[in-house]
Amino acid sequence: MAERRHELYLLTPGPLTVSPEVKSEMLRDLSPNAELHRELTAEVRRYLLDICNGTDTHVCVPIQGSATYAIEAGLQTLMPREGKLLIIQNGFYGLRLRELAEGLRLPAATLELPMLPLPTRADVERALAGDPAITHLLLCHAETGTGVLNPVEEVAAVARRHGRKLFVDAVASFGAFPLDVAALDAEAVFVSPNKCLESVPGIAMVIAKRTALEASAGRSASVVLDLHAQWRFFEEAGWWRWTPPTHVVAALAKACERHRREGGAARRLERYRRNWRRLVDGLRARGFRTLLPDDAAAPIIATFHDPDDPGYTFQALYDALERRDIVIFPGRLTATGTFRIGVMGDLVESDMEVILAAMDEAMTEIGVVPARARGAAS
Amino acid sequence: MAERRHELYLLTPGPLTVSPEVKSEMLRDLSPNAELHRELTAEVRRYLLDICNGTDTHVCVPIQGSATYAIEAGLQTLMPREGKLLIIQNGFYGLRLRELAEGLRLPAATLELPMLPLPTRADVERALAGDPAITHLLLCHAETGTGVLNPVEEVAAVARRHGRKLFVDAVASFGAFPLDVAALDAEAVFVSPNKCLESVPGIAMVIAKRTALEASAGRSASVVLDLHAQWRFFEEAGWWRWTPPTHVVAALAKACERHRREGGAARRLERYRRNWRRLVDGLRARGFRTLLPDDAAAPIIATFHDPDDPGYTFQALYDALERRDIVIFPGRLTATGTFRIGVMGDLVESDMEVILAAMDEAMTEIGVVPARARGAAS
Repeated sequence: MAERRHELYLLTPGPLTVSPEVKSEMLRDLSPNAELHRELTAEVRRYLLDICNGTDTHVCVPIQGSATYAIEAGLQTLMPREGKLLIIQNGFYGLRLRELAEGLRLPAATLELPMLPLPTRADVERALAGDPAITHLLLCHAETGTGVLNPVEEVAAVARRHGRKLFVDAVASFGAFPLDVAALDAEAVFVSPNKCLESVPGIAMVIAKRTALEASAGRSASVVLDLHAQWRFFEEAGWWRWTPPTHVVAALAKACERHRREGGAARRLERYRRNWRRLVDGLRARGFRTLLPDDAAAPIIATFHDPDDPGYTFQALYDALERRDIVIFPGRLTATGTFRIGVMGDLVESDMEVILAAMDEAMTEIGVVPARARGAAS
Repeated sequence: MAERRHELYLLTPGPLTVSPEVKSEMLRDLSPNAELHRELTAEVRRYLLDICNGTDTHVCVPIQGSATYAIEAGLQTLMPREGKLLIIQNGFYGLRLRELAEGLRLPAATLELPMLPLPTRADVERALAGDPAITHLLLCHAETGTGVLNPVEEVAAVARRHGRKLFVDAVASFGAFPLDVAALDAEAVFVSPNKCLESVPGIAMVIAKRTALEASAGRSASVVLDLHAQWRFFEEAGWWRWTPPTHVVAALAKACERHRREGGAARRLERYRRNWRRLVDGLRARGFRTLLPDDAAAPIIATFHDPDDPGYTFQALYDALERRDIVIFPGRLTATGTFRIGVMGDLVESDMEVILAAMDEAMTEIGVVPARARGAAS
């Protein structure tokens, strides 16, 4: 029996299971104006640029709030009034981006696609040909509504070829999946601290193209979400424009240090992939079937079809796992009849054994057999 | 020699010196959708309404971000397009409110007043008489730019008599100074967790009049700062509309429990008053003079004139204290030639002895005599 490494496992889209080393940074008060906090902030800003090859072309602007705050700040500040946005939507988070753009009353169109096959160059080119007013594309990289990893390089190639600009919602992918903002020529990439960067929630970051940000002064209809003003304040005063969540910032600085120590995004993705492999193999061996073929799945969450047992309900499974201090994604977003388990966070393969054992207990407790007489199948 | 109770003293406008009991709540990960986090959020919302007599008339809506985020959310959502705001400004934070309103392009006028005397009914009535378009007043309660406590009941009485609505920036006052939102009939009160509530930064709260909030659907130009949508989401889903800073929320729930245990706002204010008295008396005995007469000062910060010694610089004093792990307000905001020391946070009278001793050391180190040959004076 594998050792339980965490009292509580958060196998959700984030916030995640955070290492004690990161959380213990929050035991210290810091003055946001003091040298130490300024240096922590600067370190985070430098490191995040570094790992996406943005140092020469982009700037990193942290924003207080959740990832959606950063996305709104990016759109408020970087979308010209005369522009038009095309949202590529193939899941719940794509839908959320669309609702955000509509709520901001931005001129926007949506390229609605099924969960699979993955969006292709031809899909995007057809949409652009059909609406020449489109100036900007917006793509969700890792669509955790389904677990699909969208082909960001292909979409970026279309954008470059047709002179359109690209926003990337990399909230669930940044820190594990390869993302080269210079090569993508991304207008902005939206980043969360509490997904693959494995820190706590409370801020989010925009990696914005420097020239785009320079041209955006005075555009935002929000004062606090004005990315340009926030950026200038960091550059000129050296600290945050509004009171930052100092404890959260310190935690992220430590999380960046751990990320570097692990060997960066590539090593982190390898760990997640091992977790994901072990979990998927383990549940398949128990008769569960995944929603996606393995090659379309982002190995940070695994989505499974509900067991084929009429006695099964999602709530019963969720509750039985929660009684074992394991929290899975609450509810289903895009695909009905499925449940999702995340493998991001301070998790290693042995944790998957703990989770599989808890699944066994939970299934026994709720009296459900995953796939009666079907055996292991994909 | 008094015992040093904290490694670092943050004697600033906040974030403050937070008790280890509150910070250690952040060592636990929580799922924002799980019952525990929902209950912590609900407890905070109930308790804050309870201590300002808002339970029957108001609702408490937390917002991710700093206090300024909550103020913008309140103005974005609760200011009708056809309204006009009058900002009563007698210090730095009044000026910040003005800049915020201007940044939001709200129709707004400013009643500019000196630091002292305190704003009077006649001042406000004159402003209203001169501009009948004004529909809403906005007052900063505790102006920590100077240390002045503004007469919120008097301003509210004028608002009620003339049928105007009142917003109160209670960021620095809430949790210590009496504030009865029902009696004031406040449209909204803006609250920070990291001032007199003695928690960590990362969220802020709007205590909004229920009827005003009900009438505000669809008004906000920001999606994430839409206070109405945020409120409805709490009421309907039971959790936060966007990922909350779970660790910060848990800390605030503990801070509310401590606030209640201390005996509420009145007892907390008594403690601050004792801190303030000890600090002011101690520094006066050393030749320092306060900027304000005692009866105009909010006993959460004390503002002192610079020493009368040509060798004095603020930076030298700040640095000498920081070397002793004591951080005072960084720089001067409203009144030049002064420095400010906060006495909010997890501080008691014995901490003031530690601070006075550090001041003695710091002054000796920088070779400055506070008031040569003047002796103690106010």
